[in-house]
Amino acid sequence: MQNFEWVTPTKVIFGSKILEKLGKKTAGIGKQALFLYGKESIKKSGLYDTVVAQLKGEGVFFVEYGGVQPNPRISHAEEGARKIKENHLDVIVAVGGGSVIDEAKAIAVAACYEEPLWDFFIRKASFKKALPIVAVQTLPATSSELNGASVMTNEATHEKFSIRSEAIYPKVSFLDPSLTLDIPVQYTAYACTDILSHLMEGYFTASSDFPLQDGMVEGVCRAVMGALEIVLTDPRNLEARSTIMWAAALAWNGLLKSGVEGASIPNHVLEHPLSGFYDLPHGAGLSIVIPAWLKYMKPSIAHRILLYGERVMGLGKKLEGKTPLEGADIVIEELEDWYRHIHTPVHLKEAGIISLDVDACTNQAMALSEYWGVPGYDEEDIRAIYALMN
Amino acid sequence: MQNFEWVTPTKVIFGSKILEKLGKKTAGIGKQALFLYGKESIKKSGLYDTVVAQLKGEGVFFVEYGGVQPNPRISHAEEGARKIKENHLDVIVAVGGGSVIDEAKAIAVAACYEEPLWDFFIRKASFKKALPIVAVQTLPATSSELNGASVMTNEATHEKFSIRSEAIYPKVSFLDPSLTLDIPVQYTAYACTDILSHLMEGYFTASSDFPLQDGMVEGVCRAVMGALEIVLTDPRNLEARSTIMWAAALAWNGLLKSGVEGASIPNHVLEHPLSGFYDLPHGAGLSIVIPAWLKYMKPSIAHRILLYGERVMGLGKKLEGKTPLEGADIVIEELEDWYRHIHTPVHLKEAGIISLDVDACTNQAMALSEYWGVPGYDEEDIRAIYALMN
Repeated sequence: MQNFEWVTPTKVIFGSKILEKLGKKTAGIGKQALFLYGKESIKKSGLYDTVVAQLKGEGVFFVEYGGVQPNPRISHAEEGARKIKENHLDVIVAVGGGSVIDEAKAIAVAACYEEPLWDFFIRKASFKKALPIVAVQTLPATSSELNGASVMTNEATHEKFSIRSEAIYPKVSFLDPSLTLDIPVQYTAYACTDILSHLMEGYFTASSDFPLQDGMVEGVCRAVMGALEIVLTDPRNLEARSTIMWAAALAWNGLLKSGVEGASIPNHVLEHPLSGFYDLPHGAGLSIVIPAWLKYMKPSIAHRILLYGERVMGLGKKLEGKTPLEGADIVIEELEDWYRHIHTPVHLKEAGIISLDVDACTNQAMALSEYWGVPGYDEEDIRAIYALMN
Repeated sequence: MQNFEWVTPTKVIFGSKILEKLGKKTAGIGKQALFLYGKESIKKSGLYDTVVAQLKGEGVFFVEYGGVQPNPRISHAEEGARKIKENHLDVIVAVGGGSVIDEAKAIAVAACYEEPLWDFFIRKASFKKALPIVAVQTLPATSSELNGASVMTNEATHEKFSIRSEAIYPKVSFLDPSLTLDIPVQYTAYACTDILSHLMEGYFTASSDFPLQDGMVEGVCRAVMGALEIVLTDPRNLEARSTIMWAAALAWNGLLKSGVEGASIPNHVLEHPLSGFYDLPHGAGLSIVIPAWLKYMKPSIAHRILLYGERVMGLGKKLEGKTPLEGADIVIEELEDWYRHIHTPVHLKEAGIISLDVDACTNQAMALSEYWGVPGYDEEDIRAIYALMN
C-alpha cells in the first residue's frame, strides 16, 4: 500500500423518517440557514414542506434559494454567498442531488471570503474555512454528501473545475432512501454507471493487487449491479434503493481507494469533454468511455480486467482456458452487453454523437489530466481511445 | 437495511515514516500533552525516542505516563487524569495497542469531570466532552484507533465495562505498519482471529442478506486470512502487515455493519468470561467460542454459514450437492481446521481449561448480553453453547 490520509468528518444519518431529525440537527449547528435547492420538484414531492416545517419547528430562520442547475454555476453560487453575507446566515441546508451539495460547498467557501469564488477553483486563492453544511441527498451518485469535493462550472469561461478540502465536507448528511423511490429507472442506470466508474477507476489503475481494497470494491460493485437489476423491474424496491444510496456515498469518498498505489481517474478525464461538449448525462458518457479505455489498456491491465470479470461479473467459467488477452476481450464484451442491458450507450453514435470533435475533446482531456494529476497519457493515447468509441 | 448513524471524525494517517508528522499534528491540537504508553518495550524499539523528539521538536510540553496494562485499569486511568488536571494538559498522545488507546479515552473523559471515572462506565454519570487524543497504533486488532469505544476494568469490583461516544474518537490516528513488523506471529494470529470475529459477528447475526455490507465484509475477511497466511511464513512482510493494520481499523469501526439489521455480538458475550476468568488471549477465546456458537446456531443460520464458506473460505466445490446443514457442518469443520492451522485453540482443553466454571461464565455472559444489548439467548442457550466448547 502507499501512504494515505483519510478523514470523513461528516455524520451520516441513514434510513426512513430520518428527516424528523433535520430541524434539531440544523439548530445544533446554526440558527440562520440558507435553504438551497435545485428544481421546484421538491415542492411537488412534499420534501420542501418537510424541510420548512423542520426548520421552523426548531426556530431556525432561513432564506430560501432555489435554482441550482445540474452543472452548478459559479454565478449562482456567488449570489448565494451574497445572500448569506447580507442576512448574516450561519449554516447552509442543501436539499437535492450532487449538484446542489457541490454548490453548497462552493457557497460555503465564498461566504467566508471576499475573493471572487472562481479564484479558489483555479488555485489563485486558497481557503481554510467554510460555513457548515447540512445535506439532504435526493439523487445518489457522486458521493458529494460524503466527501470534501465540489465541481463547479464557470459559465463565462466554459471551464469546469473543482475544489477539495476537509473544510467542505457536510457536517451532517441525511440519506433517506425513500426519497429516491421515484427517480426514473434510466436516471438510476446512469447513476449506477457513475457509481461503478468511481470504483472501477482505482481498481483498473492500481499498480498491483491490493486484496483489502480490491475485496471491498468488488463487493460494492456486485451489490450495485444486483440492486440495479432489481430496480429495473421493481423501481420502488426500498432495499435495492437503500443499497444504491449507501454505495453511492461510499464509492467516491476516498475510503475504498485508500492506500491503492497508482489509483487515478483516466476515465473521468476522457468523459468530462463528452458530457461537457455534448448534452450527455455523465453516466452515459462513462459507459462509452470505459469499454474504449479498457480496450486500449488491456495489454497492460489484462490481469486486473480478468479479476473484475471473475469476481464482480461472475465470468469464471467463460474465462477458463483463455489467454489473458482473450479473457480481457470477453470481460469487455460482457461489460458492453451489461451496459446495453441497462440501456446506457457503449458507442458514441448510440448517444447521438455522429462526428466527435476529437481535437477539442483531446485538448480538454489533456488539460484535465494535468489538472487532476492523471499521468501516463499523451495526445496520441487520448486520440486513440476516442477513436475506439466509434 | 435498518436505520443507522455513522460518523468517524478521526483523521487517519497511514503508511511509512508518517511519525514525522506527529509533532506538528499534535501541536495543532494542544501544547501540553500527556504521553501515555504501556510497556517499556517502546523504549527498546526506538519508538519512545521518536515520539519524544517529535513533541520536543514542535515545542509540545509533555508529561510521561507509562504502565498501561493489557486489560487497562480504571485506577491507572484516574491517576492519568489527575496528572492532566495538575499540569493543565490539553491533549493525550497515546502510543500503543488497543489497551493504551482505550485507556486514553477513559482518561480523556475523566480529565473533563469531577465524578469518579467508573460512574461513566456504569451509566451513573454521562459525559459530553473529552480531551483530544492523538493515537499511535502499534498492535492492530481492536479498531480503538478508529472508533469511539473504550473498555476498562475496575480491578476493585472485577467488572469490565465500556463507554461509547463521538467525543472520544481519536482526533488523529497514526497507523504505521512498519511498527508492526516485529509483532510475534502467534500474537498476530490472535489479533486476526479478533479482527475476523468483529466482521463475523454482524455477518452471522444479520437478519437477512445485505449484499453491500456482505460484500465488503467478505472482502475484508479474505484479505485478513490471506495476509495472515503470508505473515505465518514471512513475518516482516510489510504489505501483509499493512493489510492487517488497515483491516483491523475498519473491522470494528461501525462502517461495515452499518444498516445491517440484527447485527449483534453474541460471540463477544460468550468470550469475555473466558478471557476474564482464565488467563486467555481474547483471540484464543474467540476461536473456541465461534465454532461452538456456529454449531448451536446452525439450524437458523445455515444459509449465512454457507455464504461465508463459499465466499470467504472458497469452499464452493466442497459444498456442492450438500444440504444446508451438511454444508454448515463442513464450513464449521474447515473453520476449525483453519484455526488449528494458525495455532489458535478450538476447544477449551487446547487452551488449558480442563474444567470450565460454567455457572460463573453463564452468569457473566447473561449480564453482558443485557449490558451490550444482545437479545435472544437465555441461560439454557448459553450453557449449551459452553458445553459445545469441550
